[in-house]
Amino acid sequence: MKTKNIIACKESAQGTNHLYAVDPNSRAKLEGNFVIATDEEIDQAAESALQAWQTFKNTSGAEKGKLLRTIADNLENLGDTLVHRAMAESGLPEGRIKGERGRTCGQLRLFASLVEEGSWVRATIDTAQPDRNPIPRVDIRKMYQSIGPVAVFGASNFPLAFSTAGGDTASAFASGCPVIVKGHPSHLGTHALVSQAIADAVISCGLPNGIFSSINGGANEGSMLVKHTAIKAVGFTGSLAGGNAIMKATYERDEPIPVYAEMGSINPIFLLPSKLDGDQNSVADQLANSINMGVGQFCTNPGILVIPPSKNQDSFLEVLGQSFDALKSHTMLNEGIYNNYESSKSKMIANQNVRSISCKSTDNTWSAQPALAKTTAQEFVKNPDLHHEVFGPFSMAVVCDSVEEMKAVAQHIEGQLTATMMGTSEEIERHTEIIETLREKAGRVIFNGVPTGVEVGHAMHHGGPYPSASSSKYTSVGTDAILRFVRPICLQNAPQSILPDALKDHNPLKIWRMVDGAQTKEVI
Amino acid sequence: MKTKNIIACKESAQGTNHLYAVDPNSRAKLEGNFVIATDEEIDQAAESALQAWQTFKNTSGAEKGKLLRTIADNLENLGDTLVHRAMAESGLPEGRIKGERGRTCGQLRLFASLVEEGSWVRATIDTAQPDRNPIPRVDIRKMYQSIGPVAVFGASNFPLAFSTAGGDTASAFASGCPVIVKGHPSHLGTHALVSQAIADAVISCGLPNGIFSSINGGANEGSMLVKHTAIKAVGFTGSLAGGNAIMKATYERDEPIPVYAEMGSINPIFLLPSKLDGDQNSVADQLANSINMGVGQFCTNPGILVIPPSKNQDSFLEVLGQSFDALKSHTMLNEGIYNNYESSKSKMIANQNVRSISCKSTDNTWSAQPALAKTTAQEFVKNPDLHHEVFGPFSMAVVCDSVEEMKAVAQHIEGQLTATMMGTSEEIERHTEIIETLREKAGRVIFNGVPTGVEVGHAMHHGGPYPSASSSKYTSVGTDAILRFVRPICLQNAPQSILPDALKDHNPLKIWRMVDGAQTKEVI
Repeated sequence: MKTKNIIACKESAQGTNHLYAVDPNSRAKLEGNFVIATDEEIDQAAESALQAWQTFKNTSGAEKGKLLRTIADNLENLGDTLVHRAMAESGLPEGRIKGERGRTCGQLRLFASLVEEGSWVRATIDTAQPDRNPIPRVDIRKMYQSIGPVAVFGASNFPLAFSTAGGDTASAFASGCPVIVKGHPSHLGTHALVSQAIADAVISCGLPNGIFSSINGGANEGSMLVKHTAIKAVGFTGSLAGGNAIMKATYERDEPIPVYAEMGSINPIFLLPSKLDGDQNSVADQLANSINMGVGQFCTNPGILVIPPSKNQDSFLEVLGQSFDALKSHTMLNEGIYNNYESSKSKMIANQNVRSISCKSTDNTWSAQPALAKTTAQEFVKNPDLHHEVFGPFSMAVVCDSVEEMKAVAQHIEGQLTATMMGTSEEIERHTEIIETLREKAGRVIFNGVPTGVEVGHAMHHGGPYPSASSSKYTSVGTDAILRFVRPICLQNAPQSILPDALKDHNPLKIWRMVDGAQTKEVI
Repeated sequence: MKTKNIIACKESAQGTNHLYAVDPNSRAKLEGNFVIATDEEIDQAAESALQAWQTFKNTSGAEKGKLLRTIADNLENLGDTLVHRAMAESGLPEGRIKGERGRTCGQLRLFASLVEEGSWVRATIDTAQPDRNPIPRVDIRKMYQSIGPVAVFGASNFPLAFSTAGGDTASAFASGCPVIVKGHPSHLGTHALVSQAIADAVISCGLPNGIFSSINGGANEGSMLVKHTAIKAVGFTGSLAGGNAIMKATYERDEPIPVYAEMGSINPIFLLPSKLDGDQNSVADQLANSINMGVGQFCTNPGILVIPPSKNQDSFLEVLGQSFDALKSHTMLNEGIYNNYESSKSKMIANQNVRSISCKSTDNTWSAQPALAKTTAQEFVKNPDLHHEVFGPFSMAVVCDSVEEMKAVAQHIEGQLTATMMGTSEEIERHTEIIETLREKAGRVIFNGVPTGVEVGHAMHHGGPYPSASSSKYTSVGTDAILRFVRPICLQNAPQSILPDALKDHNPLKIWRMVDGAQTKEVI
């Protein structure tokens, strides 16, 4: 088991402090004392990244594609070594880990395709008009270029897909940015294995070693990293407190940098009456399973179920409670998350305006019993404490007496990653006012589906208004995630010979470009 | 002369404190005691904007286009009333103000065309694949939507084009965002006239009055505005100190919001030897005139001239000094800017490593004498004080003994709006290492032109790394300025009937869209 930091693709262990990982199922220490990075190592990683960027920013789409594909291949070649360690550190079952590995490799290869094709740079060309009156127009061309070294924080809830070689790293590499990853302290071994796979890929592709470093540490090391002058952007997936702390740390910098933090969300689901009046068991099972998926540790976990006015409210909640009762409990990611789930859930249920519908007693393991509670729309609207995320398989039914109350609930929720509406098309059309509000509050509005399960594609947006994310303008999932790590560069009246290929008259990359306001793949 | 604030398109003057404008040429008070907005008025403006947004966010491109065109028409209809007041408040000559009015109206009409055409929303559609294995793909669609009320700060240096109805307001309205403008305290009458023209346009177009408010005030009123919970973004053009103060004020908000501040820049020009070895007079005149354009008060004013190694260095600097000597002095925008120019210039020239080349003594007016100084590359690299912007018609020649020194100068400059290189194509090709550095430091790299004069088009980028702007990712000039005031909204599995037109299968707006990864105007 490798336990060192990786600085510029080389193992490094200057420090004397250590971290170790715990199996949440057995609560036993796992193999490996992982060396915490020193200030000097972090500085070295950041400076190496800045230097390597001088080369990497001009690395071709083909070469970046090769890097991303090689990382994916290396991850797959780790086989059961990676699967078993990730299972041990996360408590997640084999099927989930293998599925997540598939998604992670799929993401890496999607970004490879994106940069191999090349149109993502959004080349925009306004050609010269020497005869324009009163003054001639000069030739102006613009495209995206990478912004520099990126700090990535591994997430607790996706040891592969949102961690060391997850979407942040894949999109940053795709853009041409070097990456420094701080692994999540709960899956240090997974982080070490994946880090080595990335470093091997960088070396075998002949790219500058400085484009990748990987460190172990906690809040201090993270803070030092994001304050380093060489770092130009941050990718983070985690809690609101964690995201806020990183944002605040960057406020102390002389140069502000973008922090892309994907944080808490209660992902409300608005049910319309047909869902209560039809096959209640099927709806209840769909909801309960979504809430218990990944032990409720998905960012898109539905924490609020808005129950519409209906004569079948009581019977539906009873059926829903039965679906919750039938759920199996599973082990959470670590002790802190488990304890937080228990205390947040207990606090919520202890509220005098909240009633428990399904809530089994806990045992002495870190296994999370799914729980369902209910409150009224009036109480929900009055009391922001009831809007807090309970990270885990918990959901609150918010019972409404009227459509007006449903509207009020929509208006009072905070910024969300997702919001969902379920009903017939005709019902949905009758509730456009609520949809308008949900479009204002959420990054993604879903109809007749559950929010868990985030498609990785061009049209996905995984982000939303604060506090669900630090910036509503960017997505951490899907090809547009690359836009976080680039900025436009504009070249005016440049000789053809020094233009990047994407902006040359003869369009050697054969990409889509906007030329004089029209989309085209033609040469100029 | 109207002197009140305009809250939700209606005149309002609850306060008892006033501001007045001064003619910088005569240094006499101009007509009008302008009422400073109260906290209640600012709150009312922000709340009205939030409410009006509920309608305005769904206003069609055709209607928004009509609004923008009506504002432009109203500005033109103000005729000499506007021209004379803007001249009196800014000290700028008639030709400049008329040119700026043309640019302002051109900008408004360009954004009208943009939203009338409609493709700017970047509609992206990933169609459903019900038969995909292992799990079906759902239908996912994404487009840009407006983010909410925007606070705009009028700039000192462009009383029309970067002020009340300038690029920030035009792009915010185009996106569907309500606007609250705080006028610049130096041109209160211009602000009042333009504000009324906007309010009249909003009313005559039948749009909700809350989409526009206009206030008078200083730093306190500005701070109150940007901290208001209803405000979702800020547009600012001005000094580094002003931009930093706004950014810091927003850090105190619970909800972070984007601040788009376009700030200081010294816009270095790198001359290559052919420019010293050929017709020196023509090059010197081109540079001197660019530096004195708008009394050196352009954001893209060249504050640094990098002089390459050449036997003709001394003769070129002598000719350049003569060009400076021949420049006419003009009145600056206000007393504060004039005093700041004089003290910054004196401080720079007093530096023991700086020599004055052309520096006339000042009189008792607010007229800025153009000045040229020189230093060596070695001193420039050592001393960051020499990199400070002197806002006005001042430039520093940085004399280099070698190409290595030129590279070092490029590496040591801070973030810039622009950087320029002048030489033959063959020379430019031999200096790609410097160009690489300039692409890293600046938002726009110009070849064989001067940075003053910013084309308003699709490919323009007016922004750059900090401290030239708060975010290098966005432009304040050109059609992409609209991207500052929007965010993606993603709709999953939505019935056709509730989709915005831009995302409907039959593409009723006939816009460019990305469907399953390819650009097309076709129906689905």
